[in-house]
Amino acid sequence: MSSLFSRVSAGLLSCCLTAAVMALPPADVRAGDDPALEQRFDAGIDPQDLSSWMKQLASQPNQVGSLHDKANADWILAQFRSWGWDAHIETFRVLYPTPLRVSLTLPGHDSFHATLTEPPIPGDATTSRLKDALPAYVAYQGDGDVTAPLVYVNYGMPDDYKALQRLGVSVKGRIVIVRYGAGWRGLKPRLALQHGAVGCIIYSDPADDGYGAQDVYPQGPARPAGGVQRGSVADTTEFPGDPLTPGVGATDSAQRLSIKDAPTLVRIPTLPISYSDARHFLERMGGQVAPANWRGALPITYHVGDGSVSAHLVVESDWSLKTIYDVVAVLKGAELPDQWVLRGNHHDGWVFGASDPESGQVALLAEAKALGGLVAQGWRPKRTLVYLSWDAEEPGLIGSTEWVEAHSEELRQKALVYINTDANARGILDAEGSQSLQRLVDEVAAAVVDPETHVSVAARRRAAMRVAGEEADASPAGKADARIAADAGHSLPIGALGSGSDFSPFIQHLGIASLSLQFGGEGDWDGVYHSSYDTWEHHSRFVDPGFAYDALLAKVAGRAALRLADAEQPVQRYADFAEAVGGYVTEVKALADARRAAADQQSQLLTADAYRLADDPTLSRGDPLVLPPVPHFNFAPLENAADHLSRAAKEFDAALSAGSAQLSPGTMAHVFAQLQTIEQLLAPEPGLPGRPWYRNLICAPGRLTGYSAKTLPGVREAIEDGRWDDVDRYAQLTGQALERYAARLEETHRLIAP
Amino acid sequence: MSSLFSRVSAGLLSCCLTAAVMALPPADVRAGDDPALEQRFDAGIDPQDLSSWMKQLASQPNQVGSLHDKANADWILAQFRSWGWDAHIETFRVLYPTPLRVSLTLPGHDSFHATLTEPPIPGDATTSRLKDALPAYVAYQGDGDVTAPLVYVNYGMPDDYKALQRLGVSVKGRIVIVRYGAGWRGLKPRLALQHGAVGCIIYSDPADDGYGAQDVYPQGPARPAGGVQRGSVADTTEFPGDPLTPGVGATDSAQRLSIKDAPTLVRIPTLPISYSDARHFLERMGGQVAPANWRGALPITYHVGDGSVSAHLVVESDWSLKTIYDVVAVLKGAELPDQWVLRGNHHDGWVFGASDPESGQVALLAEAKALGGLVAQGWRPKRTLVYLSWDAEEPGLIGSTEWVEAHSEELRQKALVYINTDANARGILDAEGSQSLQRLVDEVAAAVVDPETHVSVAARRRAAMRVAGEEADASPAGKADARIAADAGHSLPIGALGSGSDFSPFIQHLGIASLSLQFGGEGDWDGVYHSSYDTWEHHSRFVDPGFAYDALLAKVAGRAALRLADAEQPVQRYADFAEAVGGYVTEVKALADARRAAADQQSQLLTADAYRLADDPTLSRGDPLVLPPVPHFNFAPLENAADHLSRAAKEFDAALSAGSAQLSPGTMAHVFAQLQTIEQLLAPEPGLPGRPWYRNLICAPGRLTGYSAKTLPGVREAIEDGRWDDVDRYAQLTGQALERYAARLEETHRLIAP
Repeated sequence: MSSLFSRVSAGLLSCCLTAAVMALPPADVRAGDDPALEQRFDAGIDPQDLSSWMKQLASQPNQVGSLHDKANADWILAQFRSWGWDAHIETFRVLYPTPLRVSLTLPGHDSFHATLTEPPIPGDATTSRLKDALPAYVAYQGDGDVTAPLVYVNYGMPDDYKALQRLGVSVKGRIVIVRYGAGWRGLKPRLALQHGAVGCIIYSDPADDGYGAQDVYPQGPARPAGGVQRGSVADTTEFPGDPLTPGVGATDSAQRLSIKDAPTLVRIPTLPISYSDARHFLERMGGQVAPANWRGALPITYHVGDGSVSAHLVVESDWSLKTIYDVVAVLKGAELPDQWVLRGNHHDGWVFGASDPESGQVALLAEAKALGGLVAQGWRPKRTLVYLSWDAEEPGLIGSTEWVEAHSEELRQKALVYINTDANARGILDAEGSQSLQRLVDEVAAAVVDPETHVSVAARRRAAMRVAGEEADASPAGKADARIAADAGHSLPIGALGSGSDFSPFIQHLGIASLSLQFGGEGDWDGVYHSSYDTWEHHSRFVDPGFAYDALLAKVAGRAALRLADAEQPVQRYADFAEAVGGYVTEVKALADARRAAADQQSQLLTADAYRLADDPTLSRGDPLVLPPVPHFNFAPLENAADHLSRAAKEFDAALSAGSAQLSPGTMAHVFAQLQTIEQLLAPEPGLPGRPWYRNLICAPGRLTGYSAKTLPGVREAIEDGRWDDVDRYAQLTGQALERYAARLEETHRLIAP
Repeated sequence: MSSLFSRVSAGLLSCCLTAAVMALPPADVRAGDDPALEQRFDAGIDPQDLSSWMKQLASQPNQVGSLHDKANADWILAQFRSWGWDAHIETFRVLYPTPLRVSLTLPGHDSFHATLTEPPIPGDATTSRLKDALPAYVAYQGDGDVTAPLVYVNYGMPDDYKALQRLGVSVKGRIVIVRYGAGWRGLKPRLALQHGAVGCIIYSDPADDGYGAQDVYPQGPARPAGGVQRGSVADTTEFPGDPLTPGVGATDSAQRLSIKDAPTLVRIPTLPISYSDARHFLERMGGQVAPANWRGALPITYHVGDGSVSAHLVVESDWSLKTIYDVVAVLKGAELPDQWVLRGNHHDGWVFGASDPESGQVALLAEAKALGGLVAQGWRPKRTLVYLSWDAEEPGLIGSTEWVEAHSEELRQKALVYINTDANARGILDAEGSQSLQRLVDEVAAAVVDPETHVSVAARRRAAMRVAGEEADASPAGKADARIAADAGHSLPIGALGSGSDFSPFIQHLGIASLSLQFGGEGDWDGVYHSSYDTWEHHSRFVDPGFAYDALLAKVAGRAALRLADAEQPVQRYADFAEAVGGYVTEVKALADARRAAADQQSQLLTADAYRLADDPTLSRGDPLVLPPVPHFNFAPLENAADHLSRAAKEFDAALSAGSAQLSPGTMAHVFAQLQTIEQLLAPEPGLPGRPWYRNLICAPGRLTGYSAKTLPGVREAIEDGRWDDVDRYAQLTGQALERYAARLEETHRLIAP
């Protein structure tokens, strides 16, 4: 794999920046110097703008390759330029298969043909504008024409296959039917294939995503009977972006893999369907009754299948390359043009994409307009602001990944922080990212007022964490967070980043400090996720009426960008990061102990024949999968590094608070330079086991979770997967990276307090 | 209340026993002396008998007052007599209201009339024999004719009303519609009334009890769309038995409360309905979407109700007294006729009652026949065996309670142990009761072979507990049980008794050591529970094919009775009981601490206004119910008594094991006499707070759980209810009872090892 990773030239952006410098007036106002600046920034944000922009962006299907997606890129480009930004479109040529023929039938049973269509919704005119939409499908599945008996495997996750094994049922040569949820979409066909299945049907069960969750659209926000969740099933946990150009930008001249060698494609036909269609298959299936936690909300008894009901599944796609359009807009820094604060959100959707992604896109545009307004009033950022409107996030973070890969050298030198948004909704702030930015998030959240409760966004988030932590079913982590939230002196913890949006190439591949910001929990867009019902009408009624929270997101993300761009002193604090790492180390040690105890216990139960004796023998049961014994590991490098980091971080933070105001401009510049690249120390060669594109040793998308993060992934996943040698090896590598990070803090500390 | 508790004469039974003595040949063989005796006992048990007896007993509706219920009593009497038992029928006159008119309609909405009927099942001829059945109803609800808007309150349990309060919704003046489950039926209308409701509809949701659980009858065992769960809603947690004669036998001459003063009746009309009927109401209801854990498996979005949908509910009953028929059968003890081993199971059902109760009834009859066979072979029990076939268990343990109340003085003197069974199914042994009998249960279970796995019933139960304890969602108690189950030297823990079957008057009112025995977990009778589908056909197909486990129950319960009747040395062990009590003391202390912490925490959250800030303000929310602060309590009397008991029990058990074989017959008789009444020391005056009928201070049905037990109920429920004075008072009273128990052990110990 590593031969695929080549260095790329990064001339394009530098050119633009030079042009941008020329276009801007000289700086006379700066964030931080002038609190009124942020008030003027806020004043430039008008919810009515966001609404009308979303209506425009989401008026027609805007998936990759569509006319409207290109038109949106052009329109966004024009907006940036009209607000005084130096902007251009950068294109890539990427593999993006589009369906030519999809079909799913139930042969012999009245020959039911799945409708595979989403009927328009009365009162939502947008939902009928499907002329340029693609059939519902999942991108990067394997084309095929298969007929085979169906097996229901619940969510199709690893535990479900373990349970299936206990039931004594195999999916070999079968088509699996699984429901959405409990894990990442792309894992479902991949695990099915690993277990020998020849096809995969994924449906949205009304228990998780339909009338069992909420009233369905248009009465409520939830998924109606005909709604289908599209999505990508490419293995972005191996690498995201164009499947044919891992590690390099998919320019015209890039060297490409052949499709047959592309490792992230799934090789069995896979189709997403509605629960209205799924019921016809599920209600006819026989065999054992599905385990209790496999049952959804269809009015049927769920069965695993006994071979008597087959499905005929056909998918055929156009596998040609398509052009994608990233919009890149720059406000060049007046003093430190080579320190970049990056801010991005994608513009492509699966159909109309109102909530996902245009709700975040219009927030980004609102920031850009307000920043343009500040420039018009005479302000100039100290550092360079780079605003990015990505294409092709949906199929696999392609627009961002290709751009990051194409500009990786320049980014390694110049990128300070990347701030991402995506879909947004009414509710409470959720922030994830690099914990060195935890205090920044806390301060920004404290400076912005929640429109529903009229307290700060930070105060509301603290209240929500405290109440959630007191609930009877709160997790230990939730209870711990509640205690932290009750401590006004402690910045609120932010979660680690996995994947699922455009921050991934920045933080996972290059180790650039990143943030992901989102409001949610009250406005509900899950029910139209990746369907043709994700429209401006739905967003306006159910997700963010009045666009108050989309505008609020602009104020939060924009403030973070502004403060980073204009900071006179570092906003980072490292004790928060050290505390998080200390927690992760405790977790991986506990994980190893728990796995060891479970394996020991299972071994005793097997010796005692307890499983057989406890089982109901009238159900044909399989043996449990035997857990391998778990050795003891050398966690000392990790523990020593965590201790070192903790000491260094506390001392550095204290020194920064006490002494940075007195530093000379030259020393301060040196401090900034030291810190600008510190996070990259966490992402050294050779990357994670089996997936060298992922270099960050602190966080990564789990190979079996897809979007959600695994922390200390080299160590944690080695324990989970039983790769014992990798546990010690990555405890060492991760410890070394943390030692280098701590050493960098100590060096920088010496600059402040020599 | 206590004035209602009077002493009753107990002449009747003594008369019978005298007669029995005359009928029996002299003893020459005895259990324990002769292991072959138990093999001969087993040989007398024929599954074919059990099948044909059940077919007979369950051939027609056999609810209290029905012709077939009386015919069954007569038939059972004849069987006992044919097997050489001295048997008679004892009658009582009890309040048992029967429905004259039940009706439920949805006015204005196409005027839907609930069917309130259970359609016959193809292939099950019994289900069409409904001529003598009553309409589906719940006994002891309050008649009425009400029309009011509906409010859905999930299971209608205390936590559900707390959640409703948070939603800002009241049931005042409304009819509640609640689903079966999560707690005792009778609590549902009672809590509804307490919260101001004017009517109550209880339905079986298919998620818990229908297609969401299993295939429905006749394809599978689960409740079909038209199935209705009948039952009693009398408050048996205040006292069971005839609602008009608490504490005394309901003989013709008994003093009776007037119906209007009877405290255990519910005063609002209440009706049980099927999910087929319930759907018509639930799917039309508006208002807020029900909380996630309130949603069942109907294909609708569950709403709490907004006042727009009303129901018209009518119940009118015949409130006359009815005669009930207990069958009492005696094998008088050859040596110790005044030491009684009692064994009972009821014979009345709600309709046909095949699984509930006839599966246990035929086990009891099989024992009686086999014991009769031993008598015919020359055996006679050392102590007296009293076999009891109760009537009127279903409306509220009436047959057993009235008999116990009528014979309480004699029972206090003579009863050694009561062994109960009720519905039974294929699966694993579940035993509950007095922990002094834990080792007996263990030994009996080790002596009987499971027909499916060919290991002992005890070995299978150990395996099941070990496997369950290793499951990811195992409770701490389950994990602890798993550790015990893995220790072959430790007898398996048995659960504490609450209510829900005929053991209650014995253990709860008189403090007589009791056991409840049942197989289950594999054969499934929940789906026809208290419906007209609980038939011989259903039992034979789904609950216990071949009647192997009903016959096994006879072997286990019969062995327990035999060993107790013939024991040369005490079978009781007291360290098991002391260990259980020690655990309960730890629990109530932890409960007080947890309540205190929760109240403190809630107070902090209220002060911080955290609930309001965390809430979604677009939903009209109510404030949380404020938890009162929890003081510290004096648990020392309980702790000291538990320590005392632990020491005394260990020493006594050791002495008994070491020395009892050498005791003179006179000393051994003295030891037996001391132990015969020791359990009654746990049930002194004045009984539990607010419910003096319940005297047992170690276990009782929870006032808010109905069937399931609360241990140390005087203390535990006082903590739960915020009756702080009662906590200290009952810690004292319970401690004193345990001290007396420990002292009795010490006295008895001195007899063995002076």
